Amino acid sequence: MWRASLVTIFPDMFPGPLGLSLAGRALGQGGWGIETVDPRDHATDRHRSVDDTPAGGGPGMVMRVDVLARAIDAAAPEGDTRPRLLMTPRGAPLTQKRVRELAAGEGVVIVCGRFEGVDDRLVAARGLEEVSVGDVVLSGGEIGALVLLDACVRLLPGVMGHPESGTEESFSAGLLEYPQYTRPQSFEGVEIPAILTSGDHAKVARWRRAQAEAATKARRPDLWAAYRAAHDGSATKGE
Amino acid sequence: MWRASLVTIFPDMFPGPLGLSLAGRALGQGGWGIETVDPRDHATDRHRSVDDTPAGGGPGMVMRVDVLARAIDAAAPEGDTRPRLLMTPRGAPLTQKRVRELAAGEGVVIVCGRFEGVDDRLVAARGLEEVSVGDVVLSGGEIGALVLLDACVRLLPGVMGHPESGTEESFSAGLLEYPQYTRPQSFEGVEIPAILTSGDHAKVARWRRAQAEAATKARRPDLWAAYRAAHDGSATKGE
Repeated sequence: MWRASLVTIFPDMFPGPLGLSLAGRALGQGGWGIETVDPRDHATDRHRSVDDTPAGGGPGMVMRVDVLARAIDAAAPEGDTRPRLLMTPRGAPLTQKRVRELAAGEGVVIVCGRFEGVDDRLVAARGLEEVSVGDVVLSGGEIGALVLLDACVRLLPGVMGHPESGTEESFSAGLLEYPQYTRPQSFEGVEIPAILTSGDHAKVARWRRAQAEAATKARRPDLWAAYRAAHDGSATKGE
Repeated sequence: MWRASLVTIFPDMFPGPLGLSLAGRALGQGGWGIETVDPRDHATDRHRSVDDTPAGGGPGMVMRVDVLARAIDAAAPEGDTRPRLLMTPRGAPLTQKRVRELAAGEGVVIVCGRFEGVDDRLVAARGLEEVSVGDVVLSGGEIGALVLLDACVRLLPGVMGHPESGTEESFSAGLLEYPQYTRPQSFEGVEIPAILTSGDHAKVARWRRAQAEAATKARRPDLWAAYRAAHDGSATKGE
């Protein structure tokens, strides 16, 4: 069973939204598992402290390496080969490629930092992979962990109703999705694009491809540049 | 009061993790507000359908424009000037700059799409701003909405203990954070970098800056290129 272990001072945040929807149904049926380890249970002082002031000064508090290391050791005892991730804005942006790799494994151990950060010695001491979700400042790693888990869990066998999701295909191709439409045919005077109801599957496919390329070019110059580079490269090879 | 209205078929996902921690305390004290509108309550058939098959074919289901428009109109009646966002992988990546703008306003209306998408006519019909969080495929817009809300709520007056968070400053400067350390001085034989306990504040500041630059260069060539471009520009101007 694919199993997620969260090291978090807010264990009540899990499974949270992942306890509902298709992920929640799969969780209830044993399709995947989740457990939490609270670093406070691994503190050694009477106040159950998990943080202290930053060495060298500065605002906020930093999570202690010794307390977190004990919590990680409890979450993933020796022999547990699951990847260990640290949610942090210093990390590499999470990609769908990495999500697929993680979903194909045995599960994950995720350390949820709080915002001023964790003592950096933890990363090497416990072999953590630093991961971020988006260039925004969050109050802690917990919601980033929910993003990662939702992305992984929907790929587990039997969780999704439609494993062949069109969105997934779009991301794989390096393009944004094409726009979608459904009934009613007319809404406030605006019709579904006629080509979609033409019944000409080849034309529909070409139109969708053109729409996906146009949206990517306009909205995500970064993805578009990467897509063009990959495309031009293969064209050159083919010549 | 800053107020978030969520259009979602999973209203029980909210406030979810935002009901805990500092955000939850502020919510309980009336520092911000959250409400949900379920599109199913605005469906017109006996099955309370909110979706239908994609025009032109393809896997999955698409959320209906008419049902969602009614739900949005219920969440944000005429005269409600809050920005209306649609969480979708087709959207512009959420930035800390946009988060600050949203937090400084009256609140947000967030439409949570499910994954195969919403009928594209909805975007123009209800003036939606399409926003994405990270290039990963999620099971729906709800967890992306939690990311956006957490990022906004922590900026509201009185919510955070440390409004002058170092992380925030790092992001503003276009660099990743510098590494943090705290007690104990020695952990498994590894010491806190000596410079941080030197008491020389200027040296500490220079070291942290160099560390932030090195981390950004190594981990985020995209941010580093933008930082260098901004930096070189100002250097040229100063000459």
